[in-house]
Amino acid sequence: MSELAGISVEALRGLPEVTPGFDLGAALADAIDLSDGDVLAISQKVVSKAEGRIVDLDGVEPGSEAIELGTRLDKDPKLVEVVLSESRAVIRTDAERGILITETHHGFICANAGVDASNAPADGSVVLLPADPDRSAREIRAKIAALKGSRPAVVISDSFGRAWRLGQVEVAIGCAGLDPLDDWRGRKDTVGRELTATTIGIADQIASAADLVRDKTSRTPAVRVRGLSRFVRPDDGPGCGGQLRPPGEDLFR
Amino acid sequence: MSELAGISVEALRGLPEVTPGFDLGAALADAIDLSDGDVLAISQKVVSKAEGRIVDLDGVEPGSEAIELGTRLDKDPKLVEVVLSESRAVIRTDAERGILITETHHGFICANAGVDASNAPADGSVVLLPADPDRSAREIRAKIAALKGSRPAVVISDSFGRAWRLGQVEVAIGCAGLDPLDDWRGRKDTVGRELTATTIGIADQIASAADLVRDKTSRTPAVRVRGLSRFVRPDDGPGCGGQLRPPGEDLFR
Repeated sequence: MSELAGISVEALRGLPEVTPGFDLGAALADAIDLSDGDVLAISQKVVSKAEGRIVDLDGVEPGSEAIELGTRLDKDPKLVEVVLSESRAVIRTDAERGILITETHHGFICANAGVDASNAPADGSVVLLPADPDRSAREIRAKIAALKGSRPAVVISDSFGRAWRLGQVEVAIGCAGLDPLDDWRGRKDTVGRELTATTIGIADQIASAADLVRDKTSRTPAVRVRGLSRFVRPDDGPGCGGQLRPPGEDLFR
Repeated sequence: MSELAGISVEALRGLPEVTPGFDLGAALADAIDLSDGDVLAISQKVVSKAEGRIVDLDGVEPGSEAIELGTRLDKDPKLVEVVLSESRAVIRTDAERGILITETHHGFICANAGVDASNAPADGSVVLLPADPDRSAREIRAKIAALKGSRPAVVISDSFGRAWRLGQVEVAIGCAGLDPLDDWRGRKDTVGRELTATTIGIADQIASAADLVRDKTSRTPAVRVRGLSRFVRPDDGPGCGGQLRPPGEDLFR
């Protein structure tokens, strides 16, 4: 029992500052050797910046709900207005600690609808999540295929807080060319009994693995994961949308 | 921008069947080259088995709460009795889908208190979580140090379901020699602004990364992660207990 087999997880160092219109797919295709079975994991912030998903808070006019919520949570009402415009529901608030957890239009449940000021391009502006992260992943994948001929899977991720456990972990918010869930139901365990209720969040685990090699104070958003070709598919597949638990089956809303 | 730097994640193949009393630390020290900066991630099931945390359901006498809950959830009342004995609170039940989510005596919130029949040693028996997974991790680490002289970090993990998202992901339930949380609060982003509320669940992300190279139908519980020495510490550190969100700050109970 001495054989080790596994994966490598490597961050690209020194991506230049990304501004609206930056061709991320072309830059990554140029910088990284990417094969068909690789997974390219990219943190959301640079994807959003390249797509121009930036709002200058100076130009935001907060409505009454944002003013009320901002006052109660001790948050800038302009920021709250942007968060609400990116959300379809407010899930929880905590005035004592200034927490605003919403469900985004995509269906993600996270703090501030993923709207974030850190690493934003200028003081007073905030970065939104991509409008359609699965589409963003497909577009980057297509660009790499067009320029290089290889079709690695692409995962776009963000760090979300969680119920019950401290510490944010990176999760997948978009993907292309990857099976985001690996369904073991019906397969057998080592003694031949059927495994029950075991569906593995592959895309989320890839996002978390990729985050381990990033440095949030430097520019290392792009990570290549090599050795997971069994989860990579030639077509773009279902994306991450199907990873969301249907609200009717969710016991924690 | 072409330099790649990162980690390797490798599973040990072919660990023998683990039975109560099996010296897991010695077996892993013997099988894997482990250096001071490495992290050894081990899935909970083999740790529990080695520690004899196995219950034969035949010998369990369900109490009235277990009989009531078992009937309502269409679950074996003997299994429910074991789950309740491993729990300090029932958090959610769902009769339609037979779901029982509890808070374990350790403070973990998960389905069935982590009690699991898959990969158990014999039909009719179930495997419990280790009584003190941080202690289990410390003991395995100490054994490796005694036999090999190196002090890799040790993470013990299990796969838990989550609120809002489909797919289980592997999380850390015990660790030794690792900083389980990496606190970025107070550090600056790339343009010099202070990062807010960013604490990263390093131990959980390591657990997830390790799970990507496992095969649940074969015996690959032990995974070496190499390249994260910045999170490995000479002393055993705080363990995973401090990773639990204090109930008073938890908005999703």
